Amino acid sequence: MTAEIIHTGNTAGDSAIDPAFALHRGGKMEVRATVPVRDASDLSLAYTPGVAKVCTAIAEQPTLVHDYTWTSQAVAVVTDGTAVLGLGDIGPKASLPVMEGKAILFKQFGGVDAVPLALDCTDVDELVETVARLAPSFGGINLEDISAPRCFEVERRLQERLDIPVFHDDQHGTAIVTLAALRNAARLTGRPLGALRAVISGSGAAGVAIAKILLGAGIGDLALADRKGIVHTGRQDLTAVKREIAEMTNKAGLAGSLDDALAGADVFIGVSGGTVPEEAVATMAKDAFVFAMANPDPEIHPDVARRYASVVATGRSDYPNQINNVLAFPGVFAGALKVRASRITERMKIAAADALASVVADELSPDRVIPSPFDERVAPAVTSAVAEAARAEGVARR
Amino acid sequence: MTAEIIHTGNTAGDSAIDPAFALHRGGKMEVRATVPVRDASDLSLAYTPGVAKVCTAIAEQPTLVHDYTWTSQAVAVVTDGTAVLGLGDIGPKASLPVMEGKAILFKQFGGVDAVPLALDCTDVDELVETVARLAPSFGGINLEDISAPRCFEVERRLQERLDIPVFHDDQHGTAIVTLAALRNAARLTGRPLGALRAVISGSGAAGVAIAKILLGAGIGDLALADRKGIVHTGRQDLTAVKREIAEMTNKAGLAGSLDDALAGADVFIGVSGGTVPEEAVATMAKDAFVFAMANPDPEIHPDVARRYASVVATGRSDYPNQINNVLAFPGVFAGALKVRASRITERMKIAAADALASVVADELSPDRVIPSPFDERVAPAVTSAVAEAARAEGVARR
Repeated sequence: MTAEIIHTGNTAGDSAIDPAFALHRGGKMEVRATVPVRDASDLSLAYTPGVAKVCTAIAEQPTLVHDYTWTSQAVAVVTDGTAVLGLGDIGPKASLPVMEGKAILFKQFGGVDAVPLALDCTDVDELVETVARLAPSFGGINLEDISAPRCFEVERRLQERLDIPVFHDDQHGTAIVTLAALRNAARLTGRPLGALRAVISGSGAAGVAIAKILLGAGIGDLALADRKGIVHTGRQDLTAVKREIAEMTNKAGLAGSLDDALAGADVFIGVSGGTVPEEAVATMAKDAFVFAMANPDPEIHPDVARRYASVVATGRSDYPNQINNVLAFPGVFAGALKVRASRITERMKIAAADALASVVADELSPDRVIPSPFDERVAPAVTSAVAEAARAEGVARR
Repeated sequence: MTAEIIHTGNTAGDSAIDPAFALHRGGKMEVRATVPVRDASDLSLAYTPGVAKVCTAIAEQPTLVHDYTWTSQAVAVVTDGTAVLGLGDIGPKASLPVMEGKAILFKQFGGVDAVPLALDCTDVDELVETVARLAPSFGGINLEDISAPRCFEVERRLQERLDIPVFHDDQHGTAIVTLAALRNAARLTGRPLGALRAVISGSGAAGVAIAKILLGAGIGDLALADRKGIVHTGRQDLTAVKREIAEMTNKAGLAGSLDDALAGADVFIGVSGGTVPEEAVATMAKDAFVFAMANPDPEIHPDVARRYASVVATGRSDYPNQINNVLAFPGVFAGALKVRASRITERMKIAAADALASVVADELSPDRVIPSPFDERVAPAVTSAVAEAARAEGVARR
């Protein structure tokens, strides 16, 4: 009990013993056998000598590893602790409670066995090498809370090298759920995606991935803004990733500030952690959508945004329309693992978003463009859609 | 079902569907939450936003990671698949059924949460680097089935670098259980260890570790033999590890073959996979002990050995006195983790052996010098002894 008290002495505002500390004591997860180990006979099948035949079979035919080990449903949740929640670079050990949380959500919502692996290295080459060496033990790699722009290269190089799905959830989980909410908001207000112009505030992991999935889904136009304003091809200060994005987006050729971009825009998507003034939101088009997803403080208070926007979403559970990655990643991996997909393609991500949107398509309202994380229809719908899309894409291996 | 049939077509002697394959389908383990994840309130404590306070606390005070994550009871079972059972270098994927088996034994017998990590690299530097990068996620590292002599350097360098226990079970688990059996055999026949001369056939991971623990426990004299005969300081073909062993052992200055060493010896310990002729065992001293531990084929059949020896042990479950590592590793790690030991010292290993021996000290017979793996007294006895020894050694951190 001392640690709760020691710690609460360090952090202003904690009460005597915070319930989060009590809950986290000893961690949040365990490993369990799924086969009996009661007697010598059990042991002789699950361990020596029986196990030797199974090992030999896999040595002869390596794909059997997915039949006879837990790799068929096991995912590594890999981080380097450099971009954890809104806390930033807190290092591998301090990131572990988040990774354990992620692991139990994988199981709870997708039936996926996930192992938190917080790595003590931040160099791109080292991260890629380390994860590649670990890969034989898993059926998929979920990258988590790795800061941009390293995250893009880590993911790309790992996916080139490995024949199992590599998925950076901060990018693609967020992108899938955002697209799902946008699809339903557009449906609710009777507009096709092609008729919408969107502005994304933030060009880190989430912003870039959202831009790519919206382009893939056929958004009308789209501009990103970073701390220096709208991302456009005329800027000389862009990283390679932002330059690529600049060339794919902003057909209107906008320059200037985020606020400039919002004038007349149909959609605001905030993944920046910054703020947007009410005056700028007031200049958006009629029936605008405001997705102010920064956590815990949305870019604009949802009650204020609601004065101007027809649909408002946030990253918070205490307001309507929570853009929560748990709506995507368990089903995405469950679907990919189900068919032993070698990767998770853009088409599979869009299929996941469409399936997620369709769960509440008949129940739409301004406060309900996305299902609750506890809606039991979500994971099965996403799982099936991802598996089917993997087959259609030719990346399924069964 | 096809895979069982496909496989059984490849391996002589399998029946239509081997029960080991049926048992292994889908793997042998899973991850589970130990906290509730039923509703938004649970989620807000176990995941965002509640988890952020726990992360921040660990960032401020890193040792809290052991209070608030599963690292306090989590161990990585790390292999490179180069020396798996008697199968040899079958690679990481094919080794996974053994590592999963180990993991479930850790849980079943020690309450330790173990994660199989079969690495796709065999270079010593790469193994050390990879495990060191993984270490923040675990409270201990169990090395497994890494071939000699690389295993010695991997273990040494990792233990120098990390402040959590690093334990190569093929070495030390085997050594602990062997010492326990030898203690009880000596007790049964009324002789102190100091009065015994032992011969170890095999100078790989297990042979070297057994030699060291027997020296630490006060064996009278001891010689190892490898494929080229008795290891002695006059040999010019010794590896660094064998040279070190040569200098610590063989006070009698024996040279020649294994059979030469056995003449008049009190103890034979086989961890070689080779064979020993009946004629050589016949030359051993009165009341000799024969521990023929090669698996699945002991160096000499136990029924034959019994004609000459007062106590016979093997590695097999279908003969008396099974030298089974599961008697040691769960309790060794449980004890080390209990007190957050920074390493597992020789004294802790000897304490584990003594505790293991003492479980059956009042029930000794030639067929019962070591407890059954399913004797429920074993793990608690080993756990307590290891924790206490860690405190006495000054390596405990609570």
